[in-house]
Amino acid sequence: MILSIIKNFIKKRFDYWFDEYHNNSRFGLKGKLIVEKTSAIQKITIIESLLYGKSLLLNNCWMTAELQEKQYHECLVHPALTSSEEIEKILIIGGGDGGTAKQCLFYKEVQRIDLVEIDNLVIKLSKKYLPSIGGKAWFDKRLHIKIEDGCKWVENCQDNSYDIVIIDGSDPIGAAEGLFNKIFLQNCSRILKDGGIFAMQSESPERFEKVHIETLKLIRTIFKYADPLYGHVSIYPSGYWSWIFGAKDTRRYNKPKEKRVKEISKFCEVWSPRWQNAAFNLITASLEKKINQ
Amino acid sequence: MILSIIKNFIKKRFDYWFDEYHNNSRFGLKGKLIVEKTSAIQKITIIESLLYGKSLLLNNCWMTAELQEKQYHECLVHPALTSSEEIEKILIIGGGDGGTAKQCLFYKEVQRIDLVEIDNLVIKLSKKYLPSIGGKAWFDKRLHIKIEDGCKWVENCQDNSYDIVIIDGSDPIGAAEGLFNKIFLQNCSRILKDGGIFAMQSESPERFEKVHIETLKLIRTIFKYADPLYGHVSIYPSGYWSWIFGAKDTRRYNKPKEKRVKEISKFCEVWSPRWQNAAFNLITASLEKKINQ
Repeated sequence: MILSIIKNFIKKRFDYWFDEYHNNSRFGLKGKLIVEKTSAIQKITIIESLLYGKSLLLNNCWMTAELQEKQYHECLVHPALTSSEEIEKILIIGGGDGGTAKQCLFYKEVQRIDLVEIDNLVIKLSKKYLPSIGGKAWFDKRLHIKIEDGCKWVENCQDNSYDIVIIDGSDPIGAAEGLFNKIFLQNCSRILKDGGIFAMQSESPERFEKVHIETLKLIRTIFKYADPLYGHVSIYPSGYWSWIFGAKDTRRYNKPKEKRVKEISKFCEVWSPRWQNAAFNLITASLEKKINQ
Repeated sequence: MILSIIKNFIKKRFDYWFDEYHNNSRFGLKGKLIVEKTSAIQKITIIESLLYGKSLLLNNCWMTAELQEKQYHECLVHPALTSSEEIEKILIIGGGDGGTAKQCLFYKEVQRIDLVEIDNLVIKLSKKYLPSIGGKAWFDKRLHIKIEDGCKWVENCQDNSYDIVIIDGSDPIGAAEGLFNKIFLQNCSRILKDGGIFAMQSESPERFEKVHIETLKLIRTIFKYADPLYGHVSIYPSGYWSWIFGAKDTRRYNKPKEKRVKEISKFCEVWSPRWQNAAFNLITASLEKKINQ
């Protein structure tokens, strides 16, 4: 107890290494501890890093950072929202840091977002210590926060409830495990309107190759059309990351609507129609073979 | 002295963290030290890592690893060699681990490679401890090794000497600094045949953004056509990496010849024509703006 108090005092006052360990590798950022709490779900750590600004870890895994959040959130949101037939009603499962909601709310057409986050403390601490990540989203009346298990939420939703369903969870261990599950994904499809788009983060194709491939294959049994998109998030294991988009009627997630592209481009650091089209094709030779097996 | 002997003994016998530190971040691999030597140029460290196999560090920076070398070498070599008019005579500056030469020698059309490496000890230790990276290249009679400063080599070369010029150096500090210099690059252009292709590694567009953009702009003043290509090498800072290709007559580096694609594809884990075309377009919105400023 006393040791832990001394350790926390040192971490708050002096620059310290915060590392995520993965498969005998580690990625660390130097900085000072801002806050560390344990909720019923997980350990939540927020630091002020020297390189990427304020940064969030859940159970010692990097989740987001002020100077890395666009690299993740823009890739998850804009392929879906620029291309979906309608974008009035959106469901976000997870996304407690507010970054996904912020990107969605840049679109004037969006009328309502249900953000279903299992851990209230993530939202509370993100609002307080990472205000720039959620930005104006937290004050936007279109955002409706529900503290609930995402799996239960989709189970209880009526058919064709949403234009967009976004899964913004962590790795498929612990709290987010159910988000990679067949029944959950079938419910996501059921509650999505026909002209809508499904989007989810789908792990590192290098470090979680098996999960990535299995998730894609599973989604392809549920949505008629589904494709992976590849990009970079430096704070995640290997830095090489992926997202999967699904649709029922056509491969519509790679057909951005001109009007929305114009509306959104001024906010984007990573995403552009050119970048997106490339990211849908940046598949390595060996991964392409394995996926098509 | 005694402390250093004890430390080395521990590193060789027990799993230990080997980290590259960059800008208040670090990336580390766990493993055992195989050998560490200091040449006139730099400190050379080879470890057996648990995640990526045998791995090479120069001055504590990750250079290559058995399970990461293709992610780098295929991207540097194949856009150039599949597209150049002729590929009979090739110059490699740097590349002492042998990986670039190995990729080049997969092509039957290649008749001669001059590999100009400034540090003989890198070659010696790579041959001994990282044999799979250079592979058959070390025994191929088409490979001619010159231990010399690359800047001097290109200065002394006759005009139109090579079909391909590849710059496979480390970061632009220390030994590799001259490889990002105008006079050096002008010589590279001078010694390259008209239908040939110039290729170089051009750092992380995130962590070395300024160097990356300045290098591209400089190369564009020297070669009529030059473009960046973006990909992933997990052991390098940020994992997000770039290469630049230049040509004198057309944007020929993105027009792979069918015959060579067929010849080479069976060896490739990352590279494919689809991947390459995407990688030439995977430019983030903000980087595109900065490059076109």
